[in-house]
Amino acid sequence: MKNTATLLINCPDRKGLVAAIANFLYTYDANILHADQHQDETENRFLMRVEWDLADFKLDMDAFGAAFQPIADRFSMEWHLKLSQRKFRMAIFVSKYDHCLVDLLQRWQSGELWCDIPLIISNHEDCRRHADFYGIPFHVIEVNRENKAEAEARQMALLQEHGVNLIVLARYMQVLSPAFTAAYPYRVINIHHSFLPAFDGAKPYHRAHARGVKLIGATGHYVTEILDDGPIIEQGVIRASHRDTVEDLIQKGRDLERVVLSRSLRWHLDHRILVCGNKTVIFD
Amino acid sequence: MKNTATLLINCPDRKGLVAAIANFLYTYDANILHADQHQDETENRFLMRVEWDLADFKLDMDAFGAAFQPIADRFSMEWHLKLSQRKFRMAIFVSKYDHCLVDLLQRWQSGELWCDIPLIISNHEDCRRHADFYGIPFHVIEVNRENKAEAEARQMALLQEHGVNLIVLARYMQVLSPAFTAAYPYRVINIHHSFLPAFDGAKPYHRAHARGVKLIGATGHYVTEILDDGPIIEQGVIRASHRDTVEDLIQKGRDLERVVLSRSLRWHLDHRILVCGNKTVIFD
Amino acid sequence: MKNTATLLINCPDRKGLVAAIANFLYTYDANILHADQHQDETENRFLMRVEWDLADFKLDMDAFGAAFQPIADRFSMEWHLKLSQRKFRMAIFVSKYDHCLVDLLQRWQSGELWCDIPLIISNHEDCRRHADFYGIPFHVIEVNRENKAEAEARQMALLQEHGVNLIVLARYMQVLSPAFTAAYPYRVINIHHSFLPAFDGAKPYHRAHARGVKLIGATGHYVTEILDDGPIIEQGVIRASHRDTVEDLIQKGRDLERVVLSRSLRWHLDHRILVCGNKTVIFD
Amino acid sequence: MKNTATLLINCPDRKGLVAAIANFLYTYDANILHADQHQDETENRFLMRVEWDLADFKLDMDAFGAAFQPIADRFSMEWHLKLSQRKFRMAIFVSKYDHCLVDLLQRWQSGELWCDIPLIISNHEDCRRHADFYGIPFHVIEVNRENKAEAEARQMALLQEHGVNLIVLARYMQVLSPAFTAAYPYRVINIHHSFLPAFDGAKPYHRAHARGVKLIGATGHYVTEILDDGPIIEQGVIRASHRDTVEDLIQKGRDLERVVLSRSLRWHLDHRILVCGNKTVIFD
Repeated sequence: MKNTATLLINCPDRKGLVAAIANFLYTYDANILHADQHQDETENRFLMRVEWDLADFKLDMDAFGAAFQPIADRFSMEWHLKLSQRKFRMAIFVSKYDHCLVDLLQRWQSGELWCDIPLIISNHEDCRRHADFYGIPFHVIEVNRENKAEAEARQMALLQEHGVNLIVLARYMQVLSPAFTAAYPYRVINIHHSFLPAFDGAKPYHRAHARGVKLIGATGHYVTEILDDGPIIEQGVIRASHRDTVEDLIQKGRDLERVVLSRSLRWHLDHRILVCGNKTVIFD
Repeated sequence: MKNTATLLINCPDRKGLVAAIANFLYTYDANILHADQHQDETENRFLMRVEWDLADFKLDMDAFGAAFQPIADRFSMEWHLKLSQRKFRMAIFVSKYDHCLVDLLQRWQSGELWCDIPLIISNHEDCRRHADFYGIPFHVIEVNRENKAEAEARQMALLQEHGVNLIVLARYMQVLSPAFTAAYPYRVINIHHSFLPAFDGAKPYHRAHARGVKLIGATGHYVTEILDDGPIIEQGVIRASHRDTVEDLIQKGRDLERVVLSRSLRWHLDHRILVCGNKTVIFD
Repeated sequence: MKNTATLLINCPDRKGLVAAIANFLYTYDANILHADQHQDETENRFLMRVEWDLADFKLDMDAFGAAFQPIADRFSMEWHLKLSQRKFRMAIFVSKYDHCLVDLLQRWQSGELWCDIPLIISNHEDCRRHADFYGIPFHVIEVNRENKAEAEARQMALLQEHGVNLIVLARYMQVLSPAFTAAYPYRVINIHHSFLPAFDGAKPYHRAHARGVKLIGATGHYVTEILDDGPIIEQGVIRASHRDTVEDLIQKGRDLERVVLSRSLRWHLDHRILVCGNKTVIFD
Repeated sequence: MKNTATLLINCPDRKGLVAAIANFLYTYDANILHADQHQDETENRFLMRVEWDLADFKLDMDAFGAAFQPIADRFSMEWHLKLSQRKFRMAIFVSKYDHCLVDLLQRWQSGELWCDIPLIISNHEDCRRHADFYGIPFHVIEVNRENKAEAEARQMALLQEHGVNLIVLARYMQVLSPAFTAAYPYRVINIHHSFLPAFDGAKPYHRAHARGVKLIGATGHYVTEILDDGPIIEQGVIRASHRDTVEDLIQKGRDLERVVLSRSLRWHLDHRILVCGNKTVIFD
């Protein structure tokens, strides 16, 4: 199991940034494993991800903040430090479809997804047996037009109770309220079953079929207040033809959804994503 | 050079259709090279493409219509007969960008596109030298807000004069009027530089960049009265990343545009496309 | 649940074939749902797949053979009749990796794969819990250099006992003997973790990494006597880069393996594959 | 027209490298536009590409070498400095097929490829008219089994005379001798019409057809002494099916060849490629 630190930086672009950061890390003898940076011309921002081995790093991580803050202040940095041994605590939201859930759980158990999964929340009983098989508590909270606010309050109480800091919507067929999404900024990942911005909203496969597109897609994105409008993390497509019925598209799409969702999630778990404006920078 | 006939059929789906067609062709000793069919469940239509060798076909092609019409009537068929030796007469419309034009002309000269190109029409002088190099008459007809109707009248007069029955918009940056498109139903092929229905209309690469998509696309489609809404023939995508500027997207997109346009066009020239509702059936 | 018959035909290409088949079906009032055909020029073979609804078919299926054989004889046809309600009986072979197995079982349970799975055979205990979860008998038969013939004899006895007529190697890390593969001609489907013919044999991801390829692949194919040489059913690729370690390639590859294997399998279950020479014809 | 410097570094991986380079550039007030780095674990090498604006860079570029060499010595660096305003001088080798040549020349003229093209060399007259159209001297040097050494001597004399430092084989159907390739290490880019290492050598499309693959590919790579074995720069694939004849594969492949070759070339012209072992690192 690796023992590394990852520093994510987002600040106005200025000269001397890389030198300042590199010197700081070199002072404490960091063995840099990966470093990536990006200058966003539109926003004039500098974004950086640097990961180093903690084995022979000469600074105690508890003291990192105090040591680094002067540099951060000098360059007006937003920064986050992530330790590989501190796992995300992830909740999965699911409805009736189980293909993304089963895929995520198999990947998680095989070690491909590095996180704790303290609970799964659903508005239906259907997927409980999968949660049981993988030994994860399963909470059913029914959601309907009347009880939505109350249901979300119960969900958020559970999330808080379990220290959840990442939520994956694995084909959860409910729209989250602005209050909910505001509580988890860039902490809710959804899989939408179209290549956004085409076919946002409901029934994308039906609409793709009606339009006669020759490619269907899936999009992993952060959930924001506006439906299907958050920063896009990853997209994939697969060919369609006149022979495909709506059911065929739905079935083909499931293959995409699994792959695109799990890839989006893995990048988040590896601290590879920075958000800049309404876009993502993926340091893969 | 091959000498074949291709029959395209579009009719209500009924039993006995294939038998009737196959028997008719067998009667005249047709050597069938390709046969494809499709049942469109939504529209309850039967669509068929059958191509046979004319070498030992026992029916004179001038008599084909009279011989086949009884079957066509029995099944309420729309049908078209295409002879491989009767070439399409194709006009290319182009503005200033020359990448699609040069690509099409190179393919045409090397024999990949089986058609005559009696003329190229443009609203700018820029591409004349390519037309000259390939020996194709080049007509400049300026188009602006004031003279649009008149300009189209001149274009249509030229098309008629040259017996044109297929028009390719090779990044022609003007919108055709409903009167024009109505005159060439499913006879005008356009390349749109996005994966429709996303980013229809103007400046798709700029909007794709602003939205932060991870895939950009191109769409070959028939032009109908409504902008970018006609039946889609072919689509392609290519990956984009946060490192791509708008200019990078435009450059990547040119690779897609060339390939998607020429493929769409080739299918049309090979009589592989049937339109059913607002969709295409591609018998590839 | 659909109730259809599918007829697969493979014979020398001759005139009158389509007419003969279409007339036969029309005689008994078949409502044809799908028909596809292909002329293989290299082998001069005619291949056809035709599927029709049995709801109002006027011929008893027990009498089909007697009724159709005269046509088959006239055209020297190899033919197979498949009834949608007669399910394949499929065995899954697996070693320690569970990603393909879990994927197949989830698809099977959700109705995407139309077959019975009377048993799973493995040379290790690891995957038993998945078999248990889905309620499928799990047989461990250890295989080593000394007992290979005996182990295969035990496997074949189990297969026969359970009436198995299709075998899927879901990352089963053993090479089957020629005797075994001869007993199940075009009835054993394997997923190989490279784009064949590149990197056939052992450790393809390691060799792909060493060669520095920019794409890695996976191949679904029928198993024949020669290792990784059987007819290819389906292939997929995914981009790789200099940043990918061997472990990254292995992980990316798993996404491909799942999709390519399940797609290959589904085509087989839907009777969409004909073998011609050492190639497949896929009527999708 | 941009005015930047790009520094490419390849050295043993050690701590303090990034700090040393960043400090050096900051000393002279460099405005860094792009910086990318990679640690190759297999070879334990550090590879870096950094590009900065020369507008306000405080070091005269003639003095760069003397100023930077102490750092280079300290870390045992191989390094190359590239100035954006110093263009590559590129020769194109071509045989009879003109699709890659026309594509490259159109891209070059439209400004997509930033280089001089002082000459085109061919063993046939066929492509002269394209060279004439774009105003580039065209030299025909016939090559056959008897005169190969002499022909290469004439080619190399021409290359030297024109100060050529990059050679593109745009479907040039001759194998270069080891002496030739040794004279231009990682300076000859070839397009091979298969996804290497599959189908290296002659007639890849024919062999792909015979094997029945479901994807065909193209590979851009540096030419080394061993045929089709040099570092791979870029690869692409396109779907094939049983319906594709060898001629169809050849035609589909041309689309790939154009795109993959031009992309490989563009990365080289932008100094985005470092070679490490027999692999490329692409800083895109």
